[in-house]
Amino acid sequence: MQHALELAKCAWGQTHPNPLVGAVIVEDGRIVAEGWHHAAGEAHAEVEALKVLNRAPKAGASIYVTLEPCSTCGRTGACTDAILHSGIQKVVVGAVDPNPDHAGQGIEMLRAAGIEVVVGVLQEDCLDLNLIFNHWIVNQTPLLAAKMALTLDGKFAAASGHSQWVTGEQARADVMRWRRYFPAIAVGMNTVLHDDPSLTSRMDGETWCPIRFVFDRNLQTLASDALPQVYTDTFKDRTIVLCSADAPTELHEKLTTLGIQCWVLPVSTDGHLDLAAFRNRCAEDEIVGVYIECGPSLATSLIEGRLADYLFSYQAPKFMSDLETQGIGSGRKTQSMSQAIPLSKVRHAICGQDVLTRGFL
Amino acid sequence: MQHALELAKCAWGQTHPNPLVGAVIVEDGRIVAEGWHHAAGEAHAEVEALKVLNRAPKAGASIYVTLEPCSTCGRTGACTDAILHSGIQKVVVGAVDPNPDHAGQGIEMLRAAGIEVVVGVLQEDCLDLNLIFNHWIVNQTPLLAAKMALTLDGKFAAASGHSQWVTGEQARADVMRWRRYFPAIAVGMNTVLHDDPSLTSRMDGETWCPIRFVFDRNLQTLASDALPQVYTDTFKDRTIVLCSADAPTELHEKLTTLGIQCWVLPVSTDGHLDLAAFRNRCAEDEIVGVYIECGPSLATSLIEGRLADYLFSYQAPKFMSDLETQGIGSGRKTQSMSQAIPLSKVRHAICGQDVLTRGFL
Repeated sequence: MQHALELAKCAWGQTHPNPLVGAVIVEDGRIVAEGWHHAAGEAHAEVEALKVLNRAPKAGASIYVTLEPCSTCGRTGACTDAILHSGIQKVVVGAVDPNPDHAGQGIEMLRAAGIEVVVGVLQEDCLDLNLIFNHWIVNQTPLLAAKMALTLDGKFAAASGHSQWVTGEQARADVMRWRRYFPAIAVGMNTVLHDDPSLTSRMDGETWCPIRFVFDRNLQTLASDALPQVYTDTFKDRTIVLCSADAPTELHEKLTTLGIQCWVLPVSTDGHLDLAAFRNRCAEDEIVGVYIECGPSLATSLIEGRLADYLFSYQAPKFMSDLETQGIGSGRKTQSMSQAIPLSKVRHAICGQDVLTRGFL
Repeated sequence: MQHALELAKCAWGQTHPNPLVGAVIVEDGRIVAEGWHHAAGEAHAEVEALKVLNRAPKAGASIYVTLEPCSTCGRTGACTDAILHSGIQKVVVGAVDPNPDHAGQGIEMLRAAGIEVVVGVLQEDCLDLNLIFNHWIVNQTPLLAAKMALTLDGKFAAASGHSQWVTGEQARADVMRWRRYFPAIAVGMNTVLHDDPSLTSRMDGETWCPIRFVFDRNLQTLASDALPQVYTDTFKDRTIVLCSADAPTELHEKLTTLGIQCWVLPVSTDGHLDLAAFRNRCAEDEIVGVYIECGPSLATSLIEGRLADYLFSYQAPKFMSDLETQGIGSGRKTQSMSQAIPLSKVRHAICGQDVLTRGFL
């Protein structure tokens, strides 16, 4: 199953809106075929592994698959049919289908046909593999994930706003990996104005550009003659600016002239762009996950308003130790530790000197 | 060497001012004798292992020891002599003696006698085993270590001061382990007034009480009729109050009546008790390490003033998200990330849902 998990990751970020899935066929304790789901519309992992095997499995062969085989025909045939047809007598499943409408149906169908099915091997890891898919398939809304890089005392930057870098190289490489996992990335206008980031994923010498959202209610990122690179680089057709109907007309026209896409969103009572409307619009466009790189203001909104579904927090082993530096939080006047906002299904990763803590909000 | 490290830990916190040391004798690839240093004045680990073996080692036997064998006679004989006398022909050493006056002398002496010596096996772990000893033997001052438990946004408590609990059970058990490692513990008067802690180490059903320092310049912890438990419990002779000469006489007399020890310390220019004077006084009494459990004010002093040598920071996967809650830092008006105060030789430990980050300040 561990190997099937690794295989699934070969298509990291490339299967949306479908899940990452890996499968291996084992005969006499040896792996004889491997498969993974490459992209939506292509063969499922189990079918791929059977195709690679290119013969009938031996008696006693097993197939290990990270996700419950599908029992319904989508763009490709049902995997349960392919397994039954192959003659394999044992199926080992990582995670059950997270969709409550289908959960367990594939397993039942296989068992009804006399196949031995083992369920839940490395279940937590198999579920964690598909953070985005699991959320999408159940809720039909994108997984909104907030990412932040903090000092141990919870600061994003020096008092001046200077923030390069809070974390070390390994943590920043890990961010590139998660940028590649999500189909879209989002930042606030302050990040664009201060850091002028490319918001691409640079991994293994390759550059990949997700959809790049800029939260900019009043189009302030367009105000200067010197334009940020997200509006001018070779990936500028992947940039979408989020603004309100109140944004200055001339800046809106500037966007049109530049050929940059724009979504006009309503403003919520707190004066920010309405995240619920953003979420719905993403869902309409089948944008299944957004990695939101936060500064302190955006982080405060997302955390206190429970507007993000998931959170990535990198902690660097240093202290800004400066009251003048903005941290997370409004004046909530908390009375008890029970008012702290916790993460659940917490996972940690050591990235060099830094630690990533991630979990559901 | 890994096993020798585990053996060394059998005397966790019990060898001050000496180091923790473990040793194993290996013949034909099998461990035939184990030893560790139990307490100052007792046999060193190598001698202990040779004693356990209770015969001449076979030809080709090796001894693995976490710390370079001593070459000078202290309270016990030199370990290099014992090794030479035993006839062992190979010595594998973890860490070189951290004392620059002695470093490498034991190794040279063995090599000069024709013994094969391998140095630096699991060196980092072997050095990390003796944080306190390494600092003491070089500087002849105690290792002052600051401990804090923080939310991801760097808060110690709710705005009300309520702090039970920031971290989970496993992190709190880990704190007990470190309390046992240090000969002394220290807290500020706010911690005593708010939490009334016992400041003991409770592990494996046993309670152990370190020397308990209370930083309380004006003896405010004595002001109320209801006394904190550190002044009344069965370990009250292990409590030492740190105050200034300006503390109210009647409260000072109250301490004397209670039979509680008190150190009168000078006050530094920032109005706090002088940490340098505290450090010197500890050194005089051969108190080789102090585990300082901090709230935000004490942490700020220790970090910004570089008054602590070492730092333990537990991070819980939650956000207080409250500007009204005090964090770390004074108004430093930092201009660049390079002004952040970093930890070095960083180590991480996952404690359930929480993470411990520790390192030198």
